[in-house]
Parts: sequence; structure tokens; C-alpha cells
Amino acid sequence: MNTQISTDICIIGAGPVGLFAVFEAGLLKMRCHLVDVLPQVGGQLSEIYPQKPIYDIPGYPEIKAQELVDNLMEQIKPFDPGFTLGERVERLTKQEDGSYQVMTSDKTSIHCKVVVIAGGLGCFEPRKPDIENLQLFEGKGVSYMVKDPELYRDRKVVLAGGGDSALDWTIFLANIAQEVTLVHRGDTFRGAPDSAEKVFKLAEMGKINLVLSAHLNKINGDTHLEKVHLLSKTKEEKILDADYLIPLFGLSPKLGPIGEWGLNIEKSAIAVNTEDYSTNVERIYAIGDINTYPGKLKLILSGFHEAALMCQSAFKYVYPDQKLSFKYTTVYGVNTF
Amino acid sequence: MNTQISTDICIIGAGPVGLFAVFEAGLLKMRCHLVDVLPQVGGQLSEIYPQKPIYDIPGYPEIKAQELVDNLMEQIKPFDPGFTLGERVERLTKQEDGSYQVMTSDKTSIHCKVVVIAGGLGCFEPRKPDIENLQLFEGKGVSYMVKDPELYRDRKVVLAGGGDSALDWTIFLANIAQEVTLVHRGDTFRGAPDSAEKVFKLAEMGKINLVLSAHLNKINGDTHLEKVHLLSKTKEEKILDADYLIPLFGLSPKLGPIGEWGLNIEKSAIAVNTEDYSTNVERIYAIGDINTYPGKLKLILSGFHEAALMCQSAFKYVYPDQKLSFKYTTVYGVNTF
Ligand SMILES: Cc1cc2nc3c(=O)[nH]c(=O)nc-3n(C[C@H](O)[C@H](O)[C@H](O)COP(=O)(O)OP(=O)(O)OC[C@H]3O[C@@H](n4cnc5c(N)ncnc54)[C@H](O)[C@@H]3O)c2cc1C
Ligand SMILES: Cc1cc2nc3c(=O)[nH]c(=O)nc-3n(C[C@H](O)[C@H](O)[C@H](O)COP(=O)(O)OP(=O)(O)OC[C@H]3O[C@@H](n4cnc5c(N)ncnc54)[C@H](O)[C@@H]3O)c2cc1C
Repeated sequence: MNTQISTDICIIGAGPVGLFAVFEAGLLKMRCHLVDVLPQVGGQLSEIYPQKPIYDIPGYPEIKAQELVDNLMEQIKPFDPGFTLGERVERLTKQEDGSYQVMTSDKTSIHCKVVVIAGGLGCFEPRKPDIENLQLFEGKGVSYMVKDPELYRDRKVVLAGGGDSALDWTIFLANIAQEVTLVHRGDTFRGAPDSAEKVFKLAEMGKINLVLSAHLNKINGDTHLEKVHLLSKTKEEKILDADYLIPLFGLSPKLGPIGEWGLNIEKSAIAVNTEDYSTNVERIYAIGDINTYPGKLKLILSGFHEAALMCQSAFKYVYPDQKLSFKYTTVYGVNTF
Repeated sequence: MNTQISTDICIIGAGPVGLFAVFEAGLLKMRCHLVDVLPQVGGQLSEIYPQKPIYDIPGYPEIKAQELVDNLMEQIKPFDPGFTLGERVERLTKQEDGSYQVMTSDKTSIHCKVVVIAGGLGCFEPRKPDIENLQLFEGKGVSYMVKDPELYRDRKVVLAGGGDSALDWTIFLANIAQEVTLVHRGDTFRGAPDSAEKVFKLAEMGKINLVLSAHLNKINGDTHLEKVHLLSKTKEEKILDADYLIPLFGLSPKLGPIGEWGLNIEKSAIAVNTEDYSTNVERIYAIGDINTYPGKLKLILSGFHEAALMCQSAFKYVYPDQKLSFKYTTVYGVNTF
């Protein structure tokens, strides 16, 4: 891939706070690029509770989480931010002139004058099955999210899990893959009842294989995954031919690489100065759930305020020769580039 | 009047920040009473720019100022706050048990455990005409806002000014008062063109007296206002019989009594600790435009964040024996009293 991107501010995390930071930056004519390890924007709101109402967004007596995310996307549209989704930020490298190079898991490189960490609870990382040689096959047949369904066209795919992702992707891939097997520990599903019903129907029709009350036991292959061994509750073994294994056991957040960038970490969060939400490293800011300071509340509305103050401070790195003047949107509007 | 009110938190100022504080307090089961010197809620938004769009309320690509105020009123409804409008808070008196008595200009007394100053730019105070003995007649025929139009039924009223308030109240009182005179320095009006047109028409029809290119020069009377002297640009004097004089020259904010309560004032604002937006005086907090701290931005969204953190801290004075636990509205909803 080796994509090269250049921008004013690289925002790590496209949750509500990272998104709103684009707006505040835009008012000051600073361009932004956002990176998120998840395939979609919205952070916890879109990943964990998209359909749930939130009651404490000021001015909204009630708003569904995904609707808030959609509105934020609409609000930042005039500033045309860039997005790199489905990639994890791994490394920050300081350049001689003080600017930063941000490097992702897929080797996308973003050159920027300011780094803003809006990483929430950290990277959402997949819960992994307990299989001995699992790591050996990561990227060689084993993956934990479906980024491009076309990869599976006419191949043999084993999915595992009992939630919505497992059900939804089983249904979706049934029409694409040569052979789809869904493995689940239990015999009922946690996911939406009508998705579960569809999966049972597909199994009846012989379009997929459904293996219930069984778990992933072993995998093997030569340079690429070839076989998946299942073990049923009654200790029967079953060996499947498989080009791909996709365990979908949910995501859990981990601080991840953010912990290795020389920042002051307290209670799994980045300590910041509340004057401008700067970290101990120059040109690196932290806003939203990822930061901590006396009195910190992990609320969306707090991240919004932090984003606004951060931008006033970041301005000096983007426009070192300009004086910042504070203006109301009501009076000056949203000037676009 | 001598109304006696008792509540947990007395909020001085019913602007957007004072209003949202009711919501955050409500989530923690703290009751609020709001006082504002203006006859309506909404602070600067309702008083200065109700019909203008704001672009930087997070989640609203665009929202009219008055609409935001209406939404905030809707959002705090479950917590049923009390309101005292059209009265200025003059004095705070500490009680022996640490609680406060808040006293208004109209002698409404509010007993509370916590005082929250959300006073914005301060009291909106009327710009007054330059007449020698004006103060003598304040409350005795001279007033600067119309609180109860019935007061003027079948009386002789002189209004002065060239903006919307002067035009709107002239039109309104034309049907109520015995005699209405509108005095204006210029010969064209600053207010809405169709209101101006209506006023000219009422004058033509003999329903009101319109005196242009003239100003208020003198007033007199015995115990109550009796006469208003006008002086025209051509130095002609005109003397009107008048029971009431209502100069409507706009409002300008002044820190007002807030400056006399022993609080640390910096640049016409109250210095606070950003951990909880407390002032130097125990149990008194300051949020929104009225406070200052390093990095402070006079933005609505900042006041929202400040309100949330303030409430977490105020809780200990309202419920000294309870432990505060932090909960998401999405998970626990908005529990009402
Ligand atoms: C069930 C539930 C209910 C909630 N209810 C409320 C509520 O009612 N009100 C409220 O205010 N808050 C609520 N919250 C909290 C709210 O969701 C968070 O405060 C908010 O999501 C924080 O936003 P953020 O942008 O800081 O972080 P997040 O939303 O967590 O987004 C951070 C993003 O950063 C990404 N990321 C992290 N590290 C990396 C990396 N190295 N590379 C690439 N990407 C990375 C993550 O994948 C994630 O998408 C609730 C939370 C939950 C779980
Ligand atoms: C033209 C204009 C455009 C603006 N545009 C934007 C924008 O686009 N975005 C943005 O975020 N902000 C904007 N602002 C600023 C925004 O209006 C303020 O940040 C906001 O009003 C602050 O809210 P508040 O509740 O702290 O105070 P205020 O809205 O000022 O309300 C304070 C209230 O306290 C009352 N009060 C004060 N002292 C007393 C007393 N002793 N007794 C009784 N009552 C008292 C006052 O009467 C007033 O009603 C704009 C302001 C103006 C003037």
C-alpha cells in the first residue's frame, strides 16, 4: 500500500470527539486527516451502541448514537477531512523540523504538523479464540474483521461466533464464497432473532454448514491456512477444508500502541494539561475519553470542549506566523477552504 | 413580594449554560431554581440574536439561537426547575450551616445549598437616557422594560427609542393605553421595516403620537411622574402629560452586583478552578461566559462541559452522606424525581 498523505493535523480515532475536532480545526483553516482501526467512523457510538438513545447531548433531549455521528459527519463536511479506516496507528516519528510522520499497520504514512490523539478507550481489538498456532496464520487465512468481502469469492470460509457480526457475515458471504461454515459454541444465537432465523434457513437449504455446540480447536496449513479442526461438546472432532477462518467474537478496547509513544500514562489514559489538552510531548494533544486530568468525566460533551481548546493551541504549529483571532460562527459563518 | 423559595442549587442566569446545568444537576437528583434579570430565558441567545444561526453546537450543522434555547428548555423539563425572571440577584448571604440565601431586586429570597453563577457577560442593564432626575422616578413612572402591559391600561405612556423593542411595544400598547407617544432622535427607525411602517400608519390614523428628531430633555412630577419634556433638533420644547415613561435604548451587559460578592475577579470575569469550576468561595461555582481560567473560550459548548464537571463537585454539598457514582444516560436514562 505505502500511501503517503500530508495534512495539518492527523487525528488518531474517528469517534465523536475526533470528528468534532475537524470542525473546530476547520474554523481555524487547519486541515485534518483521521485514522481509525475500525472500518467505520463513530467510535464507541457506532461500534457499541448505534441504536441507543443518548440523553445528555446539550440541545438534544434525545438522540440515537448513530444519528449523532451522522450529524457530526454532516457538520464537518465543509472542511473535507481525509479518512484512513480499518488501519491502526502504530508509530509516531518526529521529523527534524518538529513535524510528525504517523505510520499505520498497513504502512499508510501521514505527514502532519500536529498529532491529536482522540483514541477513546484505545484500539478496539478483536477477542481471539484460544488456539495454539493462531498468530502463525494471521494474515495468512485468519482475520478478525471483514474488510473486503471479495477476498472470499469462491473460497472456503469458516466463520465463528454467535453475535450479530457472525450472523450477518455468514448471510452475506453465503452468496459469495464457495463454501461457508458457521461454528458456534452454543445452540442459540445472541444476535438479532431474524438474522438467526435466516441462518437456520440457509443451513436447511444446504447453502451453508452450521456447526453448533462446537468450538475451534486447532488450525493448520503449510504457508497458508488449509484446515480448521472443530471439537464438539461431546468431544467429537470434525476437520474442515478452509482457505479462511474469521473468528467474530466481538471487540474489546485496549490502549495498544498509544502506550508506547513516550506519553505520560495514568490509569490507562494520557495525562494532559487542561489549558489546551496538550500532552507532555510537544505537538501531541489528547482529547476525549483517552485523556485524563483532575475532574475528568468520560462524556462526549467534554470531548467537544477539549477539541475546541486544543485547536486554539495547535494553531501556532500550523500557522507559526499568524495571530489567532477568536470569532463566533454566528457572526462569521463557517468559512470553507 | 417577599417570596421565599428553597432549593438545592440556585443558578444565577438562565442563559444556555445555566439552563443546561439544570439537566446535569437533575441527573444527580439535585433540584434547581434559576433567576434572571431578563423577562425571558436564553441569555444572549434570546436577547441579542434569537433568529441567527449558530454553526458550532456539536451535532447541529446549523441551529437558530432561539431553537437551541427551546431545545434546552425541553431537555430540562423532566427536572422541573423553578424560575424567577425579571429580577436581578443582588446579594448572597452565607447561613450558619454553610448554605446560602440569595436575594433579588424584588426581595425574592432563595435558600439553597449551592450557588452557581452562570451570569454570562453580567446583568443586561438598560441603557438610560441622560436626564438629570431620572433615578428619582424609577419605579414611579419610569421603567426600562415592559413586564406587565396591563399596568399601562388607560394611562398616558411615552416610549422612547428607534429599535425593535420601541416599535413593537408602541404597536402593542396603542391598543391598551389611553395615549401613546413614541419619541425618537432620528427620523428613520433601526427596527424591522414592517414594524416601522405600522408605527407610521398608527401615527397617520391618530392612534399614537409620533415625535421624530427629538429627545427626552427633562421629567418632573410630585410623587409620581407627571410630565415629560422633549427637545427637538430645532430646539423647540414640547411638554407631554405622562403617567409612564419607557425609554427602550437597548440593553448592555454589566458585571453588576456579581462584582461585590468577594469573588476573585479577573478581566470582568470570575476566576475558577478548572477541576470543578469552583470559585474562591466555598459552595459558589461559576460557569459559562462569566468565568475565566487559562485557555478559556467564551463558547456555548465550553459552558456545557463546565456545567457537567461543576455538578459532580456540587453534589457533596447537597448529599453530604452519599457517594457519587458516574452513570451514562444511555445506560440509565433520565431518572426524574
Ligand atoms: C454503552 C455506552 C453508553 C454510553 N452512554 C453515554 C452517554 O449517554 N453520554 C455520554 O456522553 N457518553 C456516553 N458513553 C461514553 C461515550 O461513548 C464516550 O465518551 C465517547 O465515545 C468518547 O468519544 P471519543 O471520540 O473520545 O472516543 P471513542 O468513541 O472511543 O473513539 C475512539 C476511536 O479511536 C480509535 N483508535 C484508538 N486507538 C487507535 C489507534 N492506535 N489507531 C487507530 N484508531 C485508534 C478506536 O478504534 C475508536 O474508534 C457511553 C459509552 C458506552 C460504552
Ligand atoms: C452576536 C453573538 C454571536 C455569538 N455566536 C456564538 C457562536 O456562534 N457560538 C458560540 O458558542 N457562542 C456564540 N456567542 C457567545 C454565546 O452567546 C455565549 O457564549 C453564551 O450566551 C454564554 O452563555 P451563558 O449562559 O454563560 O451566559 P448568557 O447567555 O450571557 O446568560 C447569562 C444570563 O445571566 C443573567 N444575569 C447576569 N447577572 C445576573 C444577576 N445578578 N441577576 C440575574 N440575572 C443575571 C443575564 O441577564 C443573562 O440572561 C455569540 C454571542 C453574540 C453576542
